[in-house]
Amino acid sequence: MNTTKSEEKLQESLKQVEALLERYRVLETLAHIQEGPKRDLLEALAHRQNLAELEKKVAGLHPADLAYVLESLPGEERRLVFTQARPRKRGEALVEAAPAVREQLLDSLSREDLLAMLRELDPDDLAYLAESLPEDAREEVYRSLDERAASWALSQAAHPDGSVGGLMSRDVVSVREDRSLARLFEELRGRTLPRPIDAVYVVDARNVLRGALPVDAVLTRDPAACVADAMTTDVVTFSPGDKADQAAKAFERYDLVSAPVVDERGKLVGRLAVDAVVDFIREQAEMKALRRAGLAGEEDLFAPAWDSAKNRWLWLAVNLVTAFLASRVIGLFEETIAGLVALATLMPIVASVGGNTGNQTVALVIRGLSLGQVGPANVRHLLGKELSVSVLNGLVWGTVMGAAATVLYGNVPLGAVMAGAVLLNLVVSAVVGVAVPLVLHRAGRDPAQGASVLLTFTTDSMGFFIFLALARAFLV
Amino acid sequence: MNTTKSEEKLQESLKQVEALLERYRVLETLAHIQEGPKRDLLEALAHRQNLAELEKKVAGLHPADLAYVLESLPGEERRLVFTQARPRKRGEALVEAAPAVREQLLDSLSREDLLAMLRELDPDDLAYLAESLPEDAREEVYRSLDERAASWALSQAAHPDGSVGGLMSRDVVSVREDRSLARLFEELRGRTLPRPIDAVYVVDARNVLRGALPVDAVLTRDPAACVADAMTTDVVTFSPGDKADQAAKAFERYDLVSAPVVDERGKLVGRLAVDAVVDFIREQAEMKALRRAGLAGEEDLFAPAWDSAKNRWLWLAVNLVTAFLASRVIGLFEETIAGLVALATLMPIVASVGGNTGNQTVALVIRGLSLGQVGPANVRHLLGKELSVSVLNGLVWGTVMGAAATVLYGNVPLGAVMAGAVLLNLVVSAVVGVAVPLVLHRAGRDPAQGASVLLTFTTDSMGFFIFLALARAFLV
Repeated sequence: MNTTKSEEKLQESLKQVEALLERYRVLETLAHIQEGPKRDLLEALAHRQNLAELEKKVAGLHPADLAYVLESLPGEERRLVFTQARPRKRGEALVEAAPAVREQLLDSLSREDLLAMLRELDPDDLAYLAESLPEDAREEVYRSLDERAASWALSQAAHPDGSVGGLMSRDVVSVREDRSLARLFEELRGRTLPRPIDAVYVVDARNVLRGALPVDAVLTRDPAACVADAMTTDVVTFSPGDKADQAAKAFERYDLVSAPVVDERGKLVGRLAVDAVVDFIREQAEMKALRRAGLAGEEDLFAPAWDSAKNRWLWLAVNLVTAFLASRVIGLFEETIAGLVALATLMPIVASVGGNTGNQTVALVIRGLSLGQVGPANVRHLLGKELSVSVLNGLVWGTVMGAAATVLYGNVPLGAVMAGAVLLNLVVSAVVGVAVPLVLHRAGRDPAQGASVLLTFTTDSMGFFIFLALARAFLV
Repeated sequence: MNTTKSEEKLQESLKQVEALLERYRVLETLAHIQEGPKRDLLEALAHRQNLAELEKKVAGLHPADLAYVLESLPGEERRLVFTQARPRKRGEALVEAAPAVREQLLDSLSREDLLAMLRELDPDDLAYLAESLPEDAREEVYRSLDERAASWALSQAAHPDGSVGGLMSRDVVSVREDRSLARLFEELRGRTLPRPIDAVYVVDARNVLRGALPVDAVLTRDPAACVADAMTTDVVTFSPGDKADQAAKAFERYDLVSAPVVDERGKLVGRLAVDAVVDFIREQAEMKALRRAGLAGEEDLFAPAWDSAKNRWLWLAVNLVTAFLASRVIGLFEETIAGLVALATLMPIVASVGGNTGNQTVALVIRGLSLGQVGPANVRHLLGKELSVSVLNGLVWGTVMGAAATVLYGNVPLGAVMAGAVLLNLVVSAVVGVAVPLVLHRAGRDPAQGASVLLTFTTDSMGFFIFLALARAFLV
């Protein structure tokens, strides 16, 4: 019996691989220092002993665990470990690995190794990897596959990214509605069933889906019963063109394990299983977290510096432009600042408070949008609430900061301007915090991506403007 | 046959409920304008007709869909719709609802309604809701339950939040290893099996787990086969004290549908199923997104303004303190600024660029940490890479901003100071962006929560300091 495959065990695998690599490096270095025949001997030893051990270790790893080890290693060592795996294990690990790591390793394979690996894969995994392949390699593999598998892989690759079609599997168990359960058992005996299997799909003579027969019904009902009587017709189905994230929400909401995929005529064409959906949810969540921080694409933790720098340029450029524009607002008031330099010291506080509270509002609204809870009917209610919160907070914290400014500079009017500016910028941040995600959402953009930049730009500019304009009017 | 229960259908449900509520409000308003007997009649009509329709609509909703509708409605209407549901549906919807909404609705129920609802729930759901109940109500319900269910609910409630014990179900199907498959079928016939079922667990005479019998083996193997021969012993198991998020990772990694939960003597005590795990993953992801924005707790989109304001105070206070401290750095250079006011205009750009690129590094490191890919072995490599990226970006964008400052103010030395400050602050942001999440992680804190504040504080203070100190040294 295996015990829990916990984090600790996974960490242990990584440490063992790293220890083997370490020893490999030490022996290689030794070999490089030596000269002549001794050097060759040592080198051969280093290779033979350690690589054999590494190969054995890699062979014992679950593909998902190997993917984890690969993701945790820098470039050279990653490739070394990868080449120790057998072709099939390589392919399965690539399916599990992060996209950036997958692409790097695919690039590192020779054409022969690539083909040897791809030929070992089942069509679902092949279709999944095919997206990342160079055009000619893809075609060469398809030619070497049997006809059915090739046509499946081709049709899969044709589904757009993020569609149900791209995630579904063709491995479906179906039964005709007019059979008995006993007959179903006979048909299943000796077959290899796809996992996880929670239902057998019921079809008519033209392969049109009629219902689903949950496995618990198969296990508990009288074998003499007819499939049509034991099946349920309340089935959540998808079509290949459905969006994968909507399917994922349905899986969460209705606790699905698998669901049939049907074409426009209702014919059963595949099945969507929870493992593919969970992988999809995780990848999406990671992409979103990175995009929120302005990383253009998936970035390998150990990518070359040049690639990483380019990955961050767009965001840096956008950020520089917005920061520059906000700074031009200050530029309008340089005379006012020259008259009272304390303004330069205090103005970033007003801007910063607005940005931070605004981002809280943005986070709430984005969550509401992604759960579908924010709509035309309740926007006004939501805005009213956020405005009340900002006025409340503005009164409390504006007073605190106003008092601090008064004490610091012994200047009561300056304190009053500070308090007023904090209050007003919090009100601005509430309005913008509600409006920006809604506008992005209505424009069909992902609100998680651009909302924070737009909001910070507005609260910075408005924070500087409100504070300095009030100062010009009442102080200098 | 049901078709796809897509977002559209869900939105449709919400719109229908909202339309019913709208009509209810109009009739109520009419009734309030009228006087005397006509008023009473209208009011009665409003209540009877519309509530009956609402009740019917609510009765037709899946509990998860009802939870969605409840989350999307403001306070009063939320309660009105909730009270139209039958006790059992109420409880099931509460299990699915967001924590903040759940607590508000639980508070709104009378003692009798609460008990009526809880008595209808199955023990797993009851144990789940029990955490949110007032102590005395919980005990009253436990007293009214049958003994086994009560002891289960009690022991469940004893498991700490976020443990496998808190998510597991007691609804387990097990079989003795010495039986035949045919005998297993006899035992299963007519029973109600838990869903999703992907395996029957195999135990010995003392209920110690020996293996698992996948349902596909049950369906495809010869009925004469012995359970012990058909079972697999390679089973991922958990104990009730295991952390739920580690279990969730194992579910993702090994594509599990269910896993047995065993006590310290190896006895089977429950089962953890993928639907509970998916719900847990979703809740955690939402909590994290909100916490990253500094929301102290789960916040209902329509919470009263006062509650929301308090929910955001801690963060606002932290933010004010850090912004205040950063502004004191500027305070040290007020004389320098008085000598060249352009410094006040340009300094927020240096601070902002550092903060934004630093947050990109933080996002990458946090993801690496949460996937377990960042460890002592590769920290130096990672830091080296981030430093290279920051120097590259600093050279490129520092030059761009230096040129802009030179053109704007016709001041070449000012441009040079700007370029140098951008470069140096990007280097600072790379070091801090790698260090902060690592330090928080090693201190046992969630790096997603505090990293951004700490980083922004450092890059702001250092940005102001570097820029103004360079200016004092070379310009004024």
